[in-house]
Amino acid sequence: MMEQKLSFVTLGVKDLKRAADFYEHQFGWKRSAMSDENILFFELKGTQLALYNREALAEDATVDAKGEGFAGITFSYLAGSETEVDELIAGFRERGVTIVKEPQKVFWGGYSSYLSDPDGYLWEIAFNPFV
Amino acid sequence: MMEQKLSFVTLGVKDLKRAADFYEHQFGWKRSAMSDENILFFELKGTQLALYNREALAEDATVDAKGEGFAGITFSYLAGSETEVDELIAGFRERGVTIVKEPQKVFWGGYSSYLSDPDGYLWEIAFNPFV
Repeated sequence: MMEQKLSFVTLGVKDLKRAADFYEHQFGWKRSAMSDENILFFELKGTQLALYNREALAEDATVDAKGEGFAGITFSYLAGSETEVDELIAGFRERGVTIVKEPQKVFWGGYSSYLSDPDGYLWEIAFNPFV
Repeated sequence: MMEQKLSFVTLGVKDLKRAADFYEHQFGWKRSAMSDENILFFELKGTQLALYNREALAEDATVDAKGEGFAGITFSYLAGSETEVDELIAGFRERGVTIVKEPQKVFWGGYSSYLSDPDGYLWEIAFNPFV
């Protein structure tokens, strides 16, 4: 099974410079060395993943709960090898989980797949040979 | 300024039991003791927040990039006191950040506010006297 960890929270942003400016200057966070001109990373610590009723969460944030399509956010889980990615995805498939993207070599040199949770939130299951 | 940490990733879900079943039985994760019948928590470790082009992220996940309204996901930052929440929000306001919810006492006994990042992703800035 999977370790209890969340490797990344990824926000899909319209303007990377604008978003970077926000997290670097409004939050005061420092980008990590693995960042480049296309993707920025911020090392965090002590995260918890929480599940809460969608309507209640929108109400808590005082926003309209309506929303559809791509949330703009994905979650990533880094496995230890390509084989482990394959095994994890095979297990998910057997248990009826929707596989959105079959495990495959991807442009950045890794090996990646995506599955969907019941609400459509996307989890990338990947192997990154560079970390 | 803010510590470089992400206290929670919260998924707004339609059916809490269905979502809990997914993370407990598909991922094999154990809920933490602070969970109750309305909200579940999973302690994670080693998270990074990543920023990436929205269209590219959708393409990576092989989904349509279209999406609007509430993403169903919020991020939370736990400050050390109500005063610190007030001070952080005052600073954000001065720097032109959109404050979605003014700091206020909330039903669960804490003190909470929300701001929006440039893409509309919601960050809760809160004090939880119970942790």
